[in-house]
Amino acid sequence: MAAAAPPPAPTPAPEPATSLPETTPLFTRIRLATLLDVPHIHKLIHQMAVFERLTHLFSATESSLAATLFSATAQPFHSFTVFLLEASPKPFAVSTADSNPFFTPITKFVNLSLPIEDPERDTFKTSDDVTVVGFVLFFPNYSTFLAKPGFYVEDLFVRECYRRKGFGRMLLSAVAKQAVKMGYGRVEWVVLDWNVNAIRFYEEMGADLLNEWRICRLTGEALQAYGGAD
Amino acid sequence: MAAAAPPPAPTPAPEPATSLPETTPLFTRIRLATLLDVPHIHKLIHQMAVFERLTHLFSATESSLAATLFSATAQPFHSFTVFLLEASPKPFAVSTADSNPFFTPITKFVNLSLPIEDPERDTFKTSDDVTVVGFVLFFPNYSTFLAKPGFYVEDLFVRECYRRKGFGRMLLSAVAKQAVKMGYGRVEWVVLDWNVNAIRFYEEMGADLLNEWRICRLTGEALQAYGGAD
Repeated sequence: MAAAAPPPAPTPAPEPATSLPETTPLFTRIRLATLLDVPHIHKLIHQMAVFERLTHLFSATESSLAATLFSATAQPFHSFTVFLLEASPKPFAVSTADSNPFFTPITKFVNLSLPIEDPERDTFKTSDDVTVVGFVLFFPNYSTFLAKPGFYVEDLFVRECYRRKGFGRMLLSAVAKQAVKMGYGRVEWVVLDWNVNAIRFYEEMGADLLNEWRICRLTGEALQAYGGAD
Repeated sequence: MAAAAPPPAPTPAPEPATSLPETTPLFTRIRLATLLDVPHIHKLIHQMAVFERLTHLFSATESSLAATLFSATAQPFHSFTVFLLEASPKPFAVSTADSNPFFTPITKFVNLSLPIEDPERDTFKTSDDVTVVGFVLFFPNYSTFLAKPGFYVEDLFVRECYRRKGFGRMLLSAVAKQAVKMGYGRVEWVVLDWNVNAIRFYEEMGADLLNEWRICRLTGEALQAYGGAD
């Protein structure tokens, strides 16, 4: 399903000149997901379905995700691609995961005004200190008028306890940055027309809304009927 | 730009029992486009821009299309893919083009009630008898809820003198048939909300309209601004 709505990141309060405020340091990293991340990705997608009240449309399993997202022939950015955002109270060690030939992880230090209470920390931890915060799934699309590829963002999701802290913006920015790096012409996604907070957030990020266009979908039995057509 | 509006195909009139009506036989073929087809594809995309009154957004050249649509690493159906629809007054000879390992051309014989006057026959001919009628450009997309790829149809275009004869339906059906063959879950595209003829045509083909979703697009300077972001 399409992009969930990350709320706008709050503007950081100016620091008082006389005393340092109490803050919670957090180290974040955006990296390419691998086959090993499938169990976490599956749980994130399910939480997104719950958030969108669309669990009746959810039929993904860990094995179906593994087979379709991480096939042997698929190359990141040229096919379906997942960025994972992780957080840790300690700096990220430079590991073998950082030597991925396609993407150098983006690390960022953030100071939060309050510590995050994460009730699902054990479910989403990838190592002792590191926890999965959210993900973005995207893949190339194409504009014939520009004669250029772009990226289409299918999903953008941040776990509930990490929302309203700028993490959605970090994930979407990482996709935009990669598009610029590759010389691509556009980044596109969809939003529900009643989701005014998400729309405001996307417009603040520089996106235009294409209000006249409607999505057409051929699926299920109506699609299967074409299997025997000539 | 997105799918142009092929008008509904007319229902064929029943033949009278006593005498055969005058008809114009036409042989059609849908095949994978190749690098050699780029000049025709470029002209078709330009005609689509004129039809949509969007020539100010048109910047594709033959060389930019060739480089982005037919790169050495791109495999049909796993990346950007173009089906061309051709027509001929004579049956299509089985040629080397038919031995493409990815797709066996779809041929179909149609009887038209009137001959087609094609003022651009010379511009769009691919051999003595064969003329390009239209094209469809599509590529894989992905549904996380289904954990399945689908196809997204970026462009569907039929040259003016060939419209209202079922050719748009043939092209879109070929994409749907290929999706079923590959076990894909959906075929999607977009339509302008005021284009009621196109919407009726798509609904007749079995598509649903997703009326609540809006497209967001980050492009131009707003996108380039992310090039230096961290």
